[in-house]
Amino acid sequence: MKKTVNIGLIGFGTIGSGVVETLNRNLPLIEEKVGVEVVLKKIVDLDIVTDRGVQVDPHILSTNVDDILEDPDMDIVIELIGGYQPALKFILKAMENGKHVVTANKALLAKHWEEILETAFKNGVRVCFEASVGGGIPLLEPLNDSLAANQIQSIYGIINGTANYILTKMSEEGREFEDVLNEAQTLGYAEQDPAFDVEGHDTAQKLIILTILGFGVFIKQEKFHVEGISLITPQDILFASEELGCVIKLLAISQLADGELEVRVHPTLVPKDHLLAAVKGVFNGVYIVGDVVGPVMMYGPGAGMLPTASAVVSDCMDIIGDPNKPLLYGPQNTNVESIRPIAEVVSRYYLRITAIDMPGVLHAISGILSDLNISIESVNQERRDEGQEVPIFMVTHHAKEQNMLLAVERIESLESVTKDTVFIRLL
Amino acid sequence: MKKTVNIGLIGFGTIGSGVVETLNRNLPLIEEKVGVEVVLKKIVDLDIVTDRGVQVDPHILSTNVDDILEDPDMDIVIELIGGYQPALKFILKAMENGKHVVTANKALLAKHWEEILETAFKNGVRVCFEASVGGGIPLLEPLNDSLAANQIQSIYGIINGTANYILTKMSEEGREFEDVLNEAQTLGYAEQDPAFDVEGHDTAQKLIILTILGFGVFIKQEKFHVEGISLITPQDILFASEELGCVIKLLAISQLADGELEVRVHPTLVPKDHLLAAVKGVFNGVYIVGDVVGPVMMYGPGAGMLPTASAVVSDCMDIIGDPNKPLLYGPQNTNVESIRPIAEVVSRYYLRITAIDMPGVLHAISGILSDLNISIESVNQERRDEGQEVPIFMVTHHAKEQNMLLAVERIESLESVTKDTVFIRLL
Repeated sequence: MKKTVNIGLIGFGTIGSGVVETLNRNLPLIEEKVGVEVVLKKIVDLDIVTDRGVQVDPHILSTNVDDILEDPDMDIVIELIGGYQPALKFILKAMENGKHVVTANKALLAKHWEEILETAFKNGVRVCFEASVGGGIPLLEPLNDSLAANQIQSIYGIINGTANYILTKMSEEGREFEDVLNEAQTLGYAEQDPAFDVEGHDTAQKLIILTILGFGVFIKQEKFHVEGISLITPQDILFASEELGCVIKLLAISQLADGELEVRVHPTLVPKDHLLAAVKGVFNGVYIVGDVVGPVMMYGPGAGMLPTASAVVSDCMDIIGDPNKPLLYGPQNTNVESIRPIAEVVSRYYLRITAIDMPGVLHAISGILSDLNISIESVNQERRDEGQEVPIFMVTHHAKEQNMLLAVERIESLESVTKDTVFIRLL
Repeated sequence: MKKTVNIGLIGFGTIGSGVVETLNRNLPLIEEKVGVEVVLKKIVDLDIVTDRGVQVDPHILSTNVDDILEDPDMDIVIELIGGYQPALKFILKAMENGKHVVTANKALLAKHWEEILETAFKNGVRVCFEASVGGGIPLLEPLNDSLAANQIQSIYGIINGTANYILTKMSEEGREFEDVLNEAQTLGYAEQDPAFDVEGHDTAQKLIILTILGFGVFIKQEKFHVEGISLITPQDILFASEELGCVIKLLAISQLADGELEVRVHPTLVPKDHLLAAVKGVFNGVYIVGDVVGPVMMYGPGAGMLPTASAVVSDCMDIIGDPNKPLLYGPQNTNVESIRPIAEVVSRYYLRITAIDMPGVLHAISGILSDLNISIESVNQERRDEGQEVPIFMVTHHAKEQNMLLAVERIESLESVTKDTVFIRLL
């Protein structure tokens, strides 16, 4: 590359301010490492008036994105506005104009991967997105490079800090979901509309990116099972802990099973002695099993202004050091027909059934399970006075998801069963 | 690079066999990823007769290292014979002949880093050594690349599987060091001469490499404090667990403190809720704090035939993908004068003093500590009959190492103190 590398930043929000702060702090170190002058030449945002709390030369601020996209001296474009449009338009234009792109935009990558990939390839530029999954954690580069000799077998990720914070608090303090969520909202750990985080959609978008890198497969979000944590109760967590020695985590799972790929997001019972159980609070951890290396895990802050900026600026440095690196390894055209439908997934299950305690209830439930070839590993029912509502906890041996769904449907249709049945898969 | 890349392997031992097995297993995947034909053209070892348990074409075996070093078509040389010579001679010759080098040889890198670096630079070739620290764990590449935007603040590593296995077993089963060591030797987890692992020398060599990558500083092993785990007893572990909520780990530490670099290897009390405490058995974990990203951790199998081969083969793929990548980022000439001597290190300490229980003992000990400005946080002394030997457990507030050494010397010179005093630093 040239003696001076010019960077244009689109989006001066939280992460954008983090990028400016990182450069303010470490520019001499960064320039010494990459051996060229690094210049943040332009920052574009609709709002260039608000004080972002970081030191910035006002002359580089602009509201006109063409000051970046059409500047022939601009080498790298950082896109941090998020969302689909105009982010996609900007990224494509930047690449068409021969600029490398760095982005943290998981939603965009998860939806428009093929178009972005193709445009980068056509224009001979790089697109880097380490920050899009796991914030500042070294994750995509290790998965792509350091583990390159492996056929990845499985990826288990705790990749949403909000959901993990809520589950951790519920677990440590025995509190209800709604209660902890409200607190998280007050503290700014959760959005006012929390569905994106707690219903698993954010996790799903990131899992799409991990699945591209790990398995060379691009799968759209509507093609796999995504389930959040809002139905989890302190009862479930307590039972998991005391009876099963497990914690409940919202996991992103992508794994090979008999040559098919399983991709899914749902709460999962994780044994306490598994390293993923030690990933607490807003932290993220991704556990990857390769056929040669075995299990590895990467852990760290999965979000936040500076951690995410660490990944964005390191991506820029990677591009400066190696502007011609192939975009991505890997077989990109693996047949997505080989995705295993959730109905075919085999798992052990934890069930919480709420029923009126009356003669024959347990007999009816066990009959339903038996008819569907689901064998019961353990049953716990608390003592209540007859005629009262009581939770029945069950753990099954391995069963097929479609049988479990059918069983739950039949169980819920029993007259004595008064509430929706919660079922959680075991890792 | 060319359409065909030829690899020569020097050293057909455990890791060498792992490399062959990895290629046997994943060659189609590897070639699809890097987009060229990859040929293991020659394997050189003094012993080419022993069956290594992996499928290999006998025609590529040779006892003559020049079949690799002097072959003009050889692109990458993998060195896996270990030790200083002839490994150094082979590596330098390979680079002088324009070949890239991949090695797992931590001892060699830790001793001859400057010469190897300079030779690679002069000859425009790459030398990769991901396998030299943490076996198959993505560690050096993330530290160098994914965290590039950071001024690294600290590195805490559990990077010797044997020592960690022994400490884990002692902790979980309440057994003595010698007892577990003997078992580990029987199981093949420890060498017949275990000093290299349990006295911290292996950890020290790996720490030298981590310090080069993290801080751009090459420090020789004789310049820093290295201490092993052979004096740790079940008593220490029990007290650490029950009174301090800690586990004992053999840590490699490299960290900035007031602009100086501390480099040291010693047993350390790690709080149970720290993620490093969850790194158990033969596994490795390296916890890195960057000034921008905050804390991250990489975890996985730190040794073994296939895990280590995963890193070796991935390094080869990295070279194929990018033969011109700069050897290493970073300021390589940081003044090593700025290493803080261990005597100046400040830490909290756990002390186990063995003394005859008689009037005035505790008074004498506390007087010594007080004279040296070391204040005591807690004292525990079990009840024994007067005149019997009793362990006294103490935890100090922050104190300077040189004062602690002096204190221990004076304590040991007390008539009533009957055994060497054990002291362990707190993280």
